[in-house]
Amino acid sequence: MDDKLMLMIPGPTPVPESALLALAKHPIGHRTSEFSNVLGEVTQNLKWLHQTQNDVLMLTTSGTGAVEAGMINFLSPGDRIIVGCNGKFGERWAEVGIAYGLNVEQITAEWGKPLDPQQFADKLTADTDKQIKAVILTHSETSTGVLNDLETINRHVKNHGSALMIVDAVTSLGAVNLPMDDWGLDVVASGSQKGYMIPPGLGFVAVSPKAWEAYKTAKLPRYYLDLGKYRKSTAKNTTPFTPPVNLIMALHTTLGMMKTEGLEGIFSRHQRLMKATRAGIKGLNMPLFAADEFASPAITSVAPQGVEADKIRSILKKRFDIAVAGGQDHLSNKIFRIGHLGFVSDRDILSAISSLEVALRELGYEGFTPGGGIAAAARVLAE
Amino acid sequence: MDDKLMLMIPGPTPVPESALLALAKHPIGHRTSEFSNVLGEVTQNLKWLHQTQNDVLMLTTSGTGAVEAGMINFLSPGDRIIVGCNGKFGERWAEVGIAYGLNVEQITAEWGKPLDPQQFADKLTADTDKQIKAVILTHSETSTGVLNDLETINRHVKNHGSALMIVDAVTSLGAVNLPMDDWGLDVVASGSQKGYMIPPGLGFVAVSPKAWEAYKTAKLPRYYLDLGKYRKSTAKNTTPFTPPVNLIMALHTTLGMMKTEGLEGIFSRHQRLMKATRAGIKGLNMPLFAADEFASPAITSVAPQGVEADKIRSILKKRFDIAVAGGQDHLSNKIFRIGHLGFVSDRDILSAISSLEVALRELGYEGFTPGGGIAAAARVLAE
Repeated sequence: MDDKLMLMIPGPTPVPESALLALAKHPIGHRTSEFSNVLGEVTQNLKWLHQTQNDVLMLTTSGTGAVEAGMINFLSPGDRIIVGCNGKFGERWAEVGIAYGLNVEQITAEWGKPLDPQQFADKLTADTDKQIKAVILTHSETSTGVLNDLETINRHVKNHGSALMIVDAVTSLGAVNLPMDDWGLDVVASGSQKGYMIPPGLGFVAVSPKAWEAYKTAKLPRYYLDLGKYRKSTAKNTTPFTPPVNLIMALHTTLGMMKTEGLEGIFSRHQRLMKATRAGIKGLNMPLFAADEFASPAITSVAPQGVEADKIRSILKKRFDIAVAGGQDHLSNKIFRIGHLGFVSDRDILSAISSLEVALRELGYEGFTPGGGIAAAARVLAE
Repeated sequence: MDDKLMLMIPGPTPVPESALLALAKHPIGHRTSEFSNVLGEVTQNLKWLHQTQNDVLMLTTSGTGAVEAGMINFLSPGDRIIVGCNGKFGERWAEVGIAYGLNVEQITAEWGKPLDPQQFADKLTADTDKQIKAVILTHSETSTGVLNDLETINRHVKNHGSALMIVDAVTSLGAVNLPMDDWGLDVVASGSQKGYMIPPGLGFVAVSPKAWEAYKTAKLPRYYLDLGKYRKSTAKNTTPFTPPVNLIMALHTTLGMMKTEGLEGIFSRHQRLMKATRAGIKGLNMPLFAADEFASPAITSVAPQGVEADKIRSILKKRFDIAVAGGQDHLSNKIFRIGHLGFVSDRDILSAISSLEVALRELGYEGFTPGGGIAAAARVLAE
């Protein structure tokens, strides 16, 4: 049905009407006091969202550009870094490191399993001459729906003392507690089409004073992604390069909505959405790809047995105008991923689970009690 | 007056209503066949606009990011490059080269004057052992309103035989004839908030086969700005990283409008807008900052005598809701810049010139025949 699409992919996520209308307003000049005022408010609200007093900078990039900026501004050729890899995005940051001539060591886990914090501890403890310059971790692995144990891994990094903790928070920021200052994270990078509830086109990088110290001697080349330029401009409520004015106006709107809901409200809503989704999937007797203990509050991956993942996706799309994501790389057609990140309500989960029941019936998969998915999801939502 | 702003800065430029409404549509998934179809059409239309069969790639960046990508993908540390500098943007590309450890030689001219093609010829002819790897030229210098003689300078580059011709076409593409294939340009970079008639947030880089040859051995590090990734994805009507879906939908709309108008129509309109603006300014007895022979069809800079540029801008904004740009760097408050690029009609020029007359009167500047600006502009438009 035209205009009826409901996005339940892990990004772009649904955009509220007020943000869509902000996008449709004619751009204003980006070197005006009106725009500076908006930038000033946006920057304050970004700090609130990151639970930080640190700089939070905005770049015209996708999330990948933001994470790359968060790496290359603080490192020099040959620097030894540890990258946690248990999915497509962790692997991407290893590729970035290699592209820039860094000495990349990977700590890996099977896709769908979490990284083992002890492996980080071992490497960091063994590094007595402090050659490890940074640890890069994908907090919520978008490709699998696994939430890595950032808090513990970061504690090991703090014990090391000199390595920077660089976090890909692309699908965790605005979904799960990520207190940058309390935990002492050094770099937190994210993208607009996720918890921020606006379309893609903006990247964000928050930077600690310790990371700025490293910046002073970091030699990897950069210009457009040089965060020093963004820092200088942001302090004056402006931007080094022409910013995506319309997206920033939309962001101004959604950050206001987020402040109204409050961090506690946002986090508990995502917990509830995750639990209801997982209960619903279990109620349909479908295997979840990631275990409960390390499930991402942003994405739930389902690994259907006896029925193809892409056939389920196809019916959800054609019959119910619900877009869910497929598996990436070797997980193609093995899993499907339900995004419940950002502008998502309890009702959306009920729509997804009940539509999924119809899709499974159509495909002849009947290994569940009729209504069992909704019964289980409803139990969570009624709590 | 609320909502009455008329943008006459050199970017963001005015956005047509149909493009604004496209922006306001809910994003769709970027990994869908619907979006691939849009990308395919957009890519074909970008080739038409660039008058090329070469790859034209889209990046989520500002224009600066696009030009930087257009440089760093084809060069290695220490490479000798020539950068033409006669304004803020030329100087920026020299800074990019220096940031990446290139051996940057500048050919300069005073801001407001064009670069001398003979100086390029001299350096290129003297380079008998072919050490010059690229020449970087800003076609239309946005900071001054000067159009550099790309056609002649490019001819000297072709005579050299091995150097790449890299063009910053940010404010020339879609305003003046720029036949990439006919001229044999190697890299043409631009940004969305200019002739494309959409808001900022997208960068474009067109790449010749000769530049792709250089890419094979180019050693400057890059990942997010690695054009090889964009080339591979674009060939499959997809993108390497999450693209700004809404902006691409708006671009799909405006490229359609451009095709309807036709390249000849677009170029002759910009010529007429430029001539009418310049005639109007002369009719108000105000000095133009760049001479007629090398005036940009996108931007007209005015260097008022006996009245401050910023006071004029302030009245235009407050009384008439017309935003014109100020001077940059040492030209601050010395010049103002009228953008007439993209979605601009004859009527807009009449509004600007007539509002300017009122502003000058308010400021007590009376060195002109009343109505003289409009009389002169009208003469051009009635031709």
